[in-house]
Amino acid sequence: MVKASVYIATSLDGFIARPDGALDWLNGWQASAQDGDYGYQAFMDSVDVIVIGRATFETVLSFGQWPYAKKVVVLSSRPAPDLPLLAQEQIEWLGLAPRALVDHLAAQGAQHLYVDGGKTVQGFLNAGLIDDIILTRIPILIGAGIPLFGAVTHDIRLHAIETRQFDSGMVQTRYCCVKRET
Amino acid sequence: MVKASVYIATSLDGFIARPDGALDWLNGWQASAQDGDYGYQAFMDSVDVIVIGRATFETVLSFGQWPYAKKVVVLSSRPAPDLPLLAQEQIEWLGLAPRALVDHLAAQGAQHLYVDGGKTVQGFLNAGLIDDIILTRIPILIGAGIPLFGAVTHDIRLHAIETRQFDSGMVQTRYCCVKRET
Repeated sequence: MVKASVYIATSLDGFIARPDGALDWLNGWQASAQDGDYGYQAFMDSVDVIVIGRATFETVLSFGQWPYAKKVVVLSSRPAPDLPLLAQEQIEWLGLAPRALVDHLAAQGAQHLYVDGGKTVQGFLNAGLIDDIILTRIPILIGAGIPLFGAVTHDIRLHAIETRQFDSGMVQTRYCCVKRET
Repeated sequence: MVKASVYIATSLDGFIARPDGALDWLNGWQASAQDGDYGYQAFMDSVDVIVIGRATFETVLSFGQWPYAKKVVVLSSRPAPDLPLLAQEQIEWLGLAPRALVDHLAAQGAQHLYVDGGKTVQGFLNAGLIDDIILTRIPILIGAGIPLFGAVTHDIRLHAIETRQFDSGMVQTRYCCVKRET
């Protein structure tokens, strides 16, 4: 059994980035010592594969330094670009649908996937493949951007497990999803 | 000084109603005795005027029974409809912009406005006229609908004051807004 989690922050109006992908509005929030890293490292330590789409891959590339010390799968129907990075790091470029990807990774022994990026999260949610979402709301309205959530094929009910409000004003809730049987 | 508050619930993906205004997805959440009414009555008791737009007015009308025992202002640039309700109840139909409305109500001695409905809330937020938002997130994704938030003329930062997670799975945060000076 592979577990799939989402760990993501959105603006109060539900965006993960501005329309052009900019993340400037994520800056300037004062985390207290108690706030720490909002549980990010503990979450990352529990993950063995990161699954992202091409758009998120390109955003991460633009940071200049590859931040992941874990295996990363880029989900894209386009051919892989010719990047030295792809050979050096643990990056797999796959054109699979969410369910086929999970089966593929399960066969390789993966245990806990970190699913990231708007479209990828939406695809996994609609396929009933997400176990939990750790959702952090940043108390700012930016008015327009790339939404975390999108169209759904049916209403999706979740269970709120735990909520924390941080000194910075961020509010983080862990939601569990009812997964569909294969 | 008139205080203006928003008390509203949205789906996890930020909608206050389905595209046709339907609210069926609000049903079926089991509130425990501890959950009570999510603070609604205590909030209502503190309010002296309810401000809504025409769309919300029509939705409320469709409930069949007028639920408010307080003064209601309907903000609309269209002429008031010829309804017996308007004469019987404390309803004022006004075509004012948010700032002019607040001045009008302040002159009448209003102290605490409950601003409701997507477009009306957006207009007040952009005018810098909202003091606080009591926002309740219902743990369901409905995929499409009428959004609570919309375009903003500038980033709007809020302060998270208090968050409660209820047994039903609803998560309620009270946010304070920095109001603009007149």
